[in-house]
Amino acid sequence: MNFKLDHLPERPARPRESGITMVMDKGLSIRQAENFLENCGEWVDVVKLGFGTSYFAKNLQEKVNLYKEAGMKTYVGGTLFEAFYVRGQIDDYIRFLDKFGIDTMEISDGSMVIEHDEKCELIAKYSKNFTVMSEVGSKEEGILISPAKWIRMMSSELEAGSWKVIAEARESGNVGIYRPNGTAHVVLINKILAKVKQEDILWEAPIKSQQVWFIKQFGANVNLGNISASEVIPLECLRVGLRGDTFETFLPDSLIQS
Amino acid sequence: MNFKLDHLPERPARPRESGITMVMDKGLSIRQAENFLENCGEWVDVVKLGFGTSYFAKNLQEKVNLYKEAGMKTYVGGTLFEAFYVRGQIDDYIRFLDKFGIDTMEISDGSMVIEHDEKCELIAKYSKNFTVMSEVGSKEEGILISPAKWIRMMSSELEAGSWKVIAEARESGNVGIYRPNGTAHVVLINKILAKVKQEDILWEAPIKSQQVWFIKQFGANVNLGNISASEVIPLECLRVGLRGDTFETFLPDSLIQS
Amino acid sequence: MNFKLDHLPERPARPRESGITMVMDKGLSIRQAENFLENCGEWVDVVKLGFGTSYFAKNLQEKVNLYKEAGMKTYVGGTLFEAFYVRGQIDDYIRFLDKFGIDTMEISDGSMVIEHDEKCELIAKYSKNFTVMSEVGSKEEGILISPAKWIRMMSSELEAGSWKVIAEARESGNVGIYRPNGTAHVVLINKILAKVKQEDILWEAPIKSQQVWFIKQFGANVNLGNISASEVIPLECLRVGLRGDTFETFLPDSLIQS
Repeated sequence: MNFKLDHLPERPARPRESGITMVMDKGLSIRQAENFLENCGEWVDVVKLGFGTSYFAKNLQEKVNLYKEAGMKTYVGGTLFEAFYVRGQIDDYIRFLDKFGIDTMEISDGSMVIEHDEKCELIAKYSKNFTVMSEVGSKEEGILISPAKWIRMMSSELEAGSWKVIAEARESGNVGIYRPNGTAHVVLINKILAKVKQEDILWEAPIKSQQVWFIKQFGANVNLGNISASEVIPLECLRVGLRGDTFETFLPDSLIQS
Repeated sequence: MNFKLDHLPERPARPRESGITMVMDKGLSIRQAENFLENCGEWVDVVKLGFGTSYFAKNLQEKVNLYKEAGMKTYVGGTLFEAFYVRGQIDDYIRFLDKFGIDTMEISDGSMVIEHDEKCELIAKYSKNFTVMSEVGSKEEGILISPAKWIRMMSSELEAGSWKVIAEARESGNVGIYRPNGTAHVVLINKILAKVKQEDILWEAPIKSQQVWFIKQFGANVNLGNISASEVIPLECLRVGLRGDTFETFLPDSLIQS
Repeated sequence: MNFKLDHLPERPARPRESGITMVMDKGLSIRQAENFLENCGEWVDVVKLGFGTSYFAKNLQEKVNLYKEAGMKTYVGGTLFEAFYVRGQIDDYIRFLDKFGIDTMEISDGSMVIEHDEKCELIAKYSKNFTVMSEVGSKEEGILISPAKWIRMMSSELEAGSWKVIAEARESGNVGIYRPNGTAHVVLINKILAKVKQEDILWEAPIKSQQVWFIKQFGANVNLGNISASEVIPLECLRVGLRGDTFETFLPDSLIQS
């Protein structure tokens, strides 16, 4: 850090279970990935190669190695898992991950349906060899899942072997835990957190107002995902109260003007 | 490609007449252009140096050469053509293009009016030495052109020598073929396509929802333009069904869950 | 410039008092900063290292030097000044600026309140050793300051030693001189300009429609800030009328179609 300032919330060092930032890489070139790593490296825990972008990536092996050396878990978007799954090509999928040394895996059913028992079996099976992140919530607008069902799904997926459960929001931030206008389903989220440990959940929060909301509600070290590479440092500023939106969030009462 | 997957729609290789992606370069530095080419090269057919940005470009010759070597047509935004035209400096414009070896040219009248007979004469004249793309549609919000007039203009411009006609949307995607809120004028577009060949039209579609709409309606190989450099790979994912929005678009019925 | 065109408004060369562009750097890596400088260098007068990003910057000294050598004033966001101030650590703040050779300084009270007399004393004190930019306007939505108060504050801050006063809009462009929907408070701005010299004010205008509005109202050489690095060249196009939005703004009447 370039200076010392009192009353900044502490951020644990990597590897960590709380305060995780997951970045979505939508097709960065190697040099763009290096630019991103140059000043964001230590703030990022996980990189997702979004949806099917890894199909087209020119230097996929080099990129996977780059992120690995930078201490980040790397996985490919759940949509790709689903694309293989729906075609009955799941073995091809595993071969693809193995070929490139990708050791983290998302298991999701945002664009299709997998019976939940089967989803948990897949998690149990693949979590033997992969760090599994499983995603809960539909990619469809207006689909409402009851809080009880969110909790049941998250709990059983964690039990089956998921490292974290991801609460779906898409890159656009308007489904799942958010309303179509992007605001959070507050009651839903609070009910979930009454039953599921915060550090076990990774909230997709691509929009700044969503990041602000989670940080104000749940603190500097809430797990946030679908962050764009260029927003990692601005998010760190939000996390420690060095941006207008969270300026007072971590100040002691004695320093807050009435 | 980094893996094999069944039921992906085929994309023709460049040079191609269908499935064209046109990128708008709003002032990339040489190194940024190289970053863009590193992993997007083969997916892009045409690069537009947007509006007047080529006036300020530091290394214009180097950039033009770079795109040419990458197999892309390069042209400067139609607004610049109009800026020269309205000042009676069209000969200066041609000298500028020739000086930098720019062999593609947009002829448009989005910010001013050119009588349509004259526009077609310009197309006929300049298409002898340039690949001409001509643009139809106003940059003004709320200006409605009848479908019959769109068809008449497009047809006569193609006949006069245009390689493609561009359907105007601006960088913001809210005029011409779109409503002010960015949704497509469906009836207009269908009427146009009843009379003008799809491969002759390049639809400006800067917003993701617009790209999704065109791909769902007209397939993987619809011609799309005003794509930002960072959205080329995401657009390729949409084109082949490897993103949530078009996940089912190209699947055989037998694989689609009811 | 790559060509000559009649009737383009003149832009003064740097260093200049009017026509200033202030860019917000939200955490560029050194190579990204170099990319930005490669083709934007001469169009930018001031770079702000936004809010608390300079806390995290990996190569802060190198970046400060880079911008200095490129002829730009560099300062750190006012939120950081306020973060030190509210903690009673203002001397630490000055030491931080001195350590990195940062010779421009923002004095603001957007996220907290400083009595205006005290703010002016701070400006007077620090303008002896720094180029001071002071900011007027709250970061809170819906806070209205009367035109008379804007004028009084701006005038006294300039008198106290501010090089420019900044009219607050945030990165999102929806507070201070703008309504929550981003449109300008026209009457407020005109009242301010009746009393305060235009060249003494730097208007934050992160959104394109805001830039267009200011350029159409006050000409090519209005001072604009909170511009993102990738929008510098597009803004230059707006400033000289080489983009659709300002196509006619600088044309002589004889060339404008009725």
